[in-house]
Amino acid sequence: MTQAREKQATLVKPQGALGKLETLSIRLAGMSGKTDWFPARRATLLFAGDHGVMAHGVSSVPSAVTAYMVKQFLDGTAAVNSLTRQMGARLIVVDAGVDHKFKPRPRSLVPPIGIEMQTPTFVQRKIAHGTADFTQGTAMTTEQADKAIQLGMDIVRDEQKRGLDLVFLGEMGIGNTTPASAIIAAITGMDVEAVTGRGSGIDDDTYTRKVDLIKQALDLHQPPDDNTLAKIGGYEIGAIAGAILYAASQRIPVVLDGLICTAGALIAHQMNPDVVNYLIAGHQSVEAGHIISLDYLRLDPLLNLELRLGEGTGALLAFPLIESAMRTLNEMGKLDVG
Amino acid sequence: MTQAREKQATLVKPQGALGKLETLSIRLAGMSGKTDWFPARRATLLFAGDHGVMAHGVSSVPSAVTAYMVKQFLDGTAAVNSLTRQMGARLIVVDAGVDHKFKPRPRSLVPPIGIEMQTPTFVQRKIAHGTADFTQGTAMTTEQADKAIQLGMDIVRDEQKRGLDLVFLGEMGIGNTTPASAIIAAITGMDVEAVTGRGSGIDDDTYTRKVDLIKQALDLHQPPDDNTLAKIGGYEIGAIAGAILYAASQRIPVVLDGLICTAGALIAHQMNPDVVNYLIAGHQSVEAGHIISLDYLRLDPLLNLELRLGEGTGALLAFPLIESAMRTLNEMGKLDVG
Repeated sequence: MTQAREKQATLVKPQGALGKLETLSIRLAGMSGKTDWFPARRATLLFAGDHGVMAHGVSSVPSAVTAYMVKQFLDGTAAVNSLTRQMGARLIVVDAGVDHKFKPRPRSLVPPIGIEMQTPTFVQRKIAHGTADFTQGTAMTTEQADKAIQLGMDIVRDEQKRGLDLVFLGEMGIGNTTPASAIIAAITGMDVEAVTGRGSGIDDDTYTRKVDLIKQALDLHQPPDDNTLAKIGGYEIGAIAGAILYAASQRIPVVLDGLICTAGALIAHQMNPDVVNYLIAGHQSVEAGHIISLDYLRLDPLLNLELRLGEGTGALLAFPLIESAMRTLNEMGKLDVG
Repeated sequence: MTQAREKQATLVKPQGALGKLETLSIRLAGMSGKTDWFPARRATLLFAGDHGVMAHGVSSVPSAVTAYMVKQFLDGTAAVNSLTRQMGARLIVVDAGVDHKFKPRPRSLVPPIGIEMQTPTFVQRKIAHGTADFTQGTAMTTEQADKAIQLGMDIVRDEQKRGLDLVFLGEMGIGNTTPASAIIAAITGMDVEAVTGRGSGIDDDTYTRKVDLIKQALDLHQPPDDNTLAKIGGYEIGAIAGAILYAASQRIPVVLDGLICTAGALIAHQMNPDVVNYLIAGHQSVEAGHIISLDYLRLDPLLNLELRLGEGTGALLAFPLIESAMRTLNEMGKLDVG
């Protein structure tokens, strides 16, 4: 970081004129240990899972949409596919706990004309058919929570074998803003109302019910503690935490997407606070709990595009800024007036 | 725009979940007249000029740095070169009024190892060796102001012959935040203090002097009127206005950089308010007058990275978001649950 900071000061521009790109380049040099780090090999890790709390209808769409969207990812037709192609990344779709029995090789359509197709990898490591309803008991057993963390670690380890410089995290799980907001309230200590948003777009009644269900779960389980993930989490959230822990241990920078990824980051941060040094906040979403979590982790989001999609889209959209930060640091000439 | 809006509503995502990317895709469809518009051929137009008000020392660096930076652009070593390469754009450097006699072909160094070089085009159409001091008289004659507008129009027309789908605007001119702030105060009607910033990083005394000089010029010339550009403008600012006017007439979208580009946009807007329909605000800079100008033009900036460099950097950095907006609109599949 010191070397990158000194190098920034020599470039042909007023000091600090590239703003957040300069601080980003210094952080990336620190993460990787290289001032000329470049993320040539990058992967989007998209973890999917379903949620028992959906028994109370906390989303505007049914749980079956999780499996439907997984199929879209594998067919290459979702937003994350478009952005993964644009950013030249691989896409790994992981069934961490979707409530659907996928065929060994899901259908693969011919890609739309004119779009170059990169076939996504599908990893079927389902821990359970969705979590249990966390208002009645724990969302999962502690053994299942450990499996979710291990799953995320395994995925990063496997991808590292293929060559991996940068990770984009994404998720899919209808209803998962509910456990995410519960985790954020528990760990940051903020009021449930302050960290709970409208997810995919729920009405006032559903919003009130969502807030009440989260309060009920927090009363029942009294997090945070070592079992926060098991008590109120989700399989995709645990896998995200595991992916962060392993990537950080390997000095691989991780770009976060929105509310759910950041809830996963809070779980990882509970286990090892040093992980924040390897995290980049791709964007600030419209979900109120997101910026609260980023502030808690002291992460400054790169974009604010009023996104509320998930899938990793907000992480991928930030990639060109990461590239720009490292290109300007390494390609610009030295200032030499006179 | 209607077709793009209807198409957005059919895609596999909650409506509005891609936030500003959706509104951007709808605007771009309107500008180009095509829902499947794609900016395959793009150019950075970088206009340079010097400023007579520099006699009072309104920058932390001398006027000679304008010519020095033009040479950097031609050598490929500045921030704009790095970003122009990343974004796959051509670079056209235009001497609109630099106070330096450039050789017909300025020195061209061998590019740094590992960096693929695109040779910038250098257009030498100097109108004068810098503007006159606008605290003593007009910055230029009305004939010179017309020439500056014409220059910008000519550059876009010439580039259009090479194929042009998207324009990034940039500028270089030591001291040019002073005329830019003067134009912004005159046209938006805001207080001089509110629209004047610290440019490349001036101290308190210089800042006070800068504000006083702008007030003096506004008292002397009483803009805004049809001669705002001649009275308090700059050659690069006039050329930017001309480039905007011509690009808009050809339905070519234009991405603005920071304070100076936006002052040029205000001049163009005075001449034809419809130009705003073809403008994209790449970013919000740290200069206070910038967001005031964007609000006046009702433009919503895509990025906020605390930049204060100019050169077109803030326009280029927004390019991947423009690409993402059009890719998602055109590559995503249709929602079909059930």
